[in-house]
Amino acid sequence: MQEYGQNWEDIESALQQAKSKDISYEKVLSSMCTYPHPVAVEAHRIFIESNMGDYGLFMGTYELEKSVLTMLGDLLHNSHPYGYLTTGGTESNIQAVRAMRNACTSIKDPNIIVSGSAHFSFDKIADILKINVRKARILPDLVVDTEDVLSLIDKNTVGLVGIAGSTEFGQVDPISELSKIAIDNDLPLHIDAAFGGFLLPFLPNHVPFDFSLPGVTSIAIDPHKMGLSTIPSGALLFREEKMMELLKVDTPYLTISSQCTLTGTRSGASVASTYAVMKHLGKEGYQQVVNKCMKLTNLLLDETKNIGVKPVIDPVMNIVALSVEEPKKIRTELATQFGWQVSVTKQPSSIRLVVMPHMTEENILAFVRDLKTVIQQLQSSEINMQE
Amino acid sequence: MQEYGQNWEDIESALQQAKSKDISYEKVLSSMCTYPHPVAVEAHRIFIESNMGDYGLFMGTYELEKSVLTMLGDLLHNSHPYGYLTTGGTESNIQAVRAMRNACTSIKDPNIIVSGSAHFSFDKIADILKINVRKARILPDLVVDTEDVLSLIDKNTVGLVGIAGSTEFGQVDPISELSKIAIDNDLPLHIDAAFGGFLLPFLPNHVPFDFSLPGVTSIAIDPHKMGLSTIPSGALLFREEKMMELLKVDTPYLTISSQCTLTGTRSGASVASTYAVMKHLGKEGYQQVVNKCMKLTNLLLDETKNIGVKPVIDPVMNIVALSVEEPKKIRTELATQFGWQVSVTKQPSSIRLVVMPHMTEENILAFVRDLKTVIQQLQSSEINMQE
Repeated sequence: MQEYGQNWEDIESALQQAKSKDISYEKVLSSMCTYPHPVAVEAHRIFIESNMGDYGLFMGTYELEKSVLTMLGDLLHNSHPYGYLTTGGTESNIQAVRAMRNACTSIKDPNIIVSGSAHFSFDKIADILKINVRKARILPDLVVDTEDVLSLIDKNTVGLVGIAGSTEFGQVDPISELSKIAIDNDLPLHIDAAFGGFLLPFLPNHVPFDFSLPGVTSIAIDPHKMGLSTIPSGALLFREEKMMELLKVDTPYLTISSQCTLTGTRSGASVASTYAVMKHLGKEGYQQVVNKCMKLTNLLLDETKNIGVKPVIDPVMNIVALSVEEPKKIRTELATQFGWQVSVTKQPSSIRLVVMPHMTEENILAFVRDLKTVIQQLQSSEINMQE
Repeated sequence: MQEYGQNWEDIESALQQAKSKDISYEKVLSSMCTYPHPVAVEAHRIFIESNMGDYGLFMGTYELEKSVLTMLGDLLHNSHPYGYLTTGGTESNIQAVRAMRNACTSIKDPNIIVSGSAHFSFDKIADILKINVRKARILPDLVVDTEDVLSLIDKNTVGLVGIAGSTEFGQVDPISELSKIAIDNDLPLHIDAAFGGFLLPFLPNHVPFDFSLPGVTSIAIDPHKMGLSTIPSGALLFREEKMMELLKVDTPYLTISSQCTLTGTRSGASVASTYAVMKHLGKEGYQQVVNKCMKLTNLLLDETKNIGVKPVIDPVMNIVALSVEEPKKIRTELATQFGWQVSVTKQPSSIRLVVMPHMTEENILAFVRDLKTVIQQLQSSEINMQE
């Protein structure tokens, strides 16, 4: 740290230089984040100093948070949800599992059963919360095998987790069946809809995944993904207050007497941002966002089929996994030659593309052209010789 | 959630109405947060879409984070710290304790010894990490009794925690002695300097509390408190990489292969914000901020002594705890009659005031005037009759 401060011009120039090394989302097909909506950015700025960790000082922002929870509840078929705005899916999932664990303090060696397609945050959760995370088998269509879920339940099981929009393949577990299993076994059921929560409700004939199913006790949904809010904006919703109360810790020297959140200081800017973009778009606006992403997803599917590349499964959401030889090599070549950012999946092996709202028809077509080039290069001896 | 979206004018008006219910920091003497520096706000805006949870896409922001860690290391006497920017003190403390716990997996029933003045986040940590948090006795001057720390160590102890700037009284534990105890007992020592980290280095003749002490293995320091950055900006620094590695989880489908952070998606805006304000202020700038806060703290002390109110201890930092009869009543009256926000402490009972950079001489004088009025009212029978 320097002795003396720099002027803003020098700092701005350093920031812009850094910014130029960040990749613009236009060429990013690997991320579940995107540009926040301008309305979200503006609301974020207005509430930049608001701290929801001590919301007694910020009752206005707190009212906005209650509005957001009501709107999210409406989206997820719950007219009176309990919950709060988190930093994102990982915190929401940690807290939901922590509530499950805390509901059964008599169990010394607790476990939860999660879909084998669960996000890696469940490995974090296992470590953080000291809980056994049992991963249930995945069927060929990449949804959880509910028979296996049932067989994994034992006397130490404290809850179930289903995925509504898996990170790798965008697949949705049979939540209706999980809901029945949860009820039959008197277990809470958490749904990780961090990505799918702002998308599935806007798909025609989507399978039920939310509080409309009686066994679902909590849901993670991320406004900073398909909700177009600013980072960090996650949300955790509980059906019953008593589940949320299991997270309570006393808070001396604040204007409030207890906290159910994971963090202490908490962004009020994110609350305002989420409020603003949800009010601004309304259901119709999100419908248009989803329509656009799904239209481009279908274009991507058609175009890749035209060059002889097939998807691992028929996509449910705006996530496409393409079956290719040597996906890691393809990823590297796409990045180094053309600047495209894609990711790879492990099982089954594929390249994975998330078609976010920042994508355009032009870029989808350009991407498929470049993908074709890379595949042809790899098939020719020229590149093989270099290996 | 409405069917159709609202226009920005209506949303802005709702936001401004909410904002009018938030309390302006000018009358807040209870918070460790304040207005972020304008330079921080501007940098935050420029990087609003940056996600450090997948920093392979944001290598420019990642470089800014490395710069911030270097600057923080320089402030805390470590030329090569390991760590990352967190959401705040609670996450930093969770992660530091998690690393301690994970370093000793063979211990079935681990415990840590924390100062009895530790922040309530350590109660959260006990619950989240399933670790026993043993609170060591506090001496009359409100620092930890190191004899008691020593006596609490047993074969299941995995680490120690010292407080450099307690939330309630702004007191600093004898970290030098804790450092010796840590070395003698081969235990890691985490320092919670979430509040004190940006203040103590700028106090004349402050006691050593940072990596200059050989036993200190990690430090929590919050740029969003006295660092004048935006929320959420915390930081966790480790002396050794191997401690940080204990937090590692594999991350498929990202541009990076593992994460040591608690959250997944992570604000790059906060990184840029912290970078900008630290570069802009430099050591000299923070010195001025601290000088101002300490000058106002001394003014507050002098003025309260003039009206016959004494502090619980001579303040070390910009936190003043005033010995008064019925602190809760005084808090309520100050808020309802005059709009002042103060908090109360439990043991010893007092009203607690944090003199943040948003405070002014004028407001300190106005506050003491109003405090005098409230105390006189309570002493008179008029208010006593109403009870």
